[in-house]
Amino acid sequence: MTDDYALTGAQKEGLYKAIFSRRDVRSHFIPKSIPNDVLARILNAAHHAPSVGFSQPWNFILIRDSETRRKVKESFLREQGRSTALLDGDKDRQKKYSSLKLEGIMESDVNVCVTYDPTRFGPFVLGRTSIEETGVYSVACAVQNLWLAARAEGVGVGWVSILANSDLENILGMPTHAKPIAYLCLGYVAEFSDKPDLERLGWLPRMALSEVICYEKWGELEPPGSWSEFQSGVKAQDEVRREDNI
Amino acid sequence: MTDDYALTGAQKEGLYKAIFSRRDVRSHFIPKSIPNDVLARILNAAHHAPSVGFSQPWNFILIRDSETRRKVKESFLREQGRSTALLDGDKDRQKKYSSLKLEGIMESDVNVCVTYDPTRFGPFVLGRTSIEETGVYSVACAVQNLWLAARAEGVGVGWVSILANSDLENILGMPTHAKPIAYLCLGYVAEFSDKPDLERLGWLPRMALSEVICYEKWGELEPPGSWSEFQSGVKAQDEVRREDNI
Repeated sequence: MTDDYALTGAQKEGLYKAIFSRRDVRSHFIPKSIPNDVLARILNAAHHAPSVGFSQPWNFILIRDSETRRKVKESFLREQGRSTALLDGDKDRQKKYSSLKLEGIMESDVNVCVTYDPTRFGPFVLGRTSIEETGVYSVACAVQNLWLAARAEGVGVGWVSILANSDLENILGMPTHAKPIAYLCLGYVAEFSDKPDLERLGWLPRMALSEVICYEKWGELEPPGSWSEFQSGVKAQDEVRREDNI
Repeated sequence: MTDDYALTGAQKEGLYKAIFSRRDVRSHFIPKSIPNDVLARILNAAHHAPSVGFSQPWNFILIRDSETRRKVKESFLREQGRSTALLDGDKDRQKKYSSLKLEGIMESDVNVCVTYDPTRFGPFVLGRTSIEETGVYSVACAVQNLWLAARAEGVGVGWVSILANSDLENILGMPTHAKPIAYLCLGYVAEFSDKPDLERLGWLPRMALSEVICYEKWGELEPPGSWSEFQSGVKAQDEVRREDNI
């Protein structure tokens, strides 16, 4: 047996369902609290992400206070204004951009700021000596675990990236050595869209899997002999997901 | 119902099993090929990660060529040497560090270099205008999807971070605008350890979940009134995972 350690069919289905039906939720939050045990499971999933040198360099700041959220929302509005101005030369896109709902800071049940602390277990962190950014990558992996666990629990997550990190640092009282990585809004939702909002609304298309795979070197999109049979597997995946509408 | 969209019990179990039993695999690879459909599913899971502005800024360079791997291994050995020298003042840790097996570049079935292309669908990428690093974070989320899907399929993954990015760029023929994010080794394994290697071998301890959660502000480890009941949920999670030995 080569796959002695594979999960069962239903278990695999669960993982793939979480991955393919996960959405970045900005609207559709409903006013209903996340039970303590559910939120704790979601955070524990995040805490079990991989981390370079087992450094576990993350913190999760849980925010329910409305005054804190209001300040974060103000940062969003300022940054959104700056962002809109960047599209002054493309009025069509600017109009489309302005019509999008991009955050659920006030109406979600809880906000979670996921942060990076490079001093955790340092200064020598095994495996971080050549590529320092691997510390930050670990935190992003924790965000993805959180997102998938939330989806499995029926909880929506939206990542608000239109913010100034300096504002977050001030609002949350962060020391200079730590850094905000993700500002997330969590809550139950009225629906999970069948496709990502930005795909559904025609902002950008989903790329085919075959367009993002290279063989042996950068830019080699055509498989050499040793990989030729593999490409039919790739095309089959594109078909499956197109039929699933996700 | 507040959790109409939650996965079923067996499906949830699958997601959590993948998350909690995922390991960074450096040894234990066995000489057995990953079937095309399995590898394609794993890569498609990665391709369905969240990405800022739906920019899908990743590429997956698949590497089987042994000459390419040999060059990557040489980069690892150089960087490992540099890293070892950093511990000259701490001979105990240096000895422990030198005894660790930290990569499976040559003996895994396939290597995958996951890269970031900031020009994809650019220059205006929705949501990346305030915090440019969100593009790179998207790619790290794709790595985590890949890792979890591989675990579900019974395939081990090791992230080799002791490499020089400049070496990878040369070896893989990358253009200056793109950047390697993760160099991964994939293959079937003789075992998945019950705990992360670095925990099992006493390099560092697993932190309790309660140690990485803050309430409302950075550094507030004691929950205010509105959060007091939540902390028992957090402690229960620590217990569950300790009993599971993961």
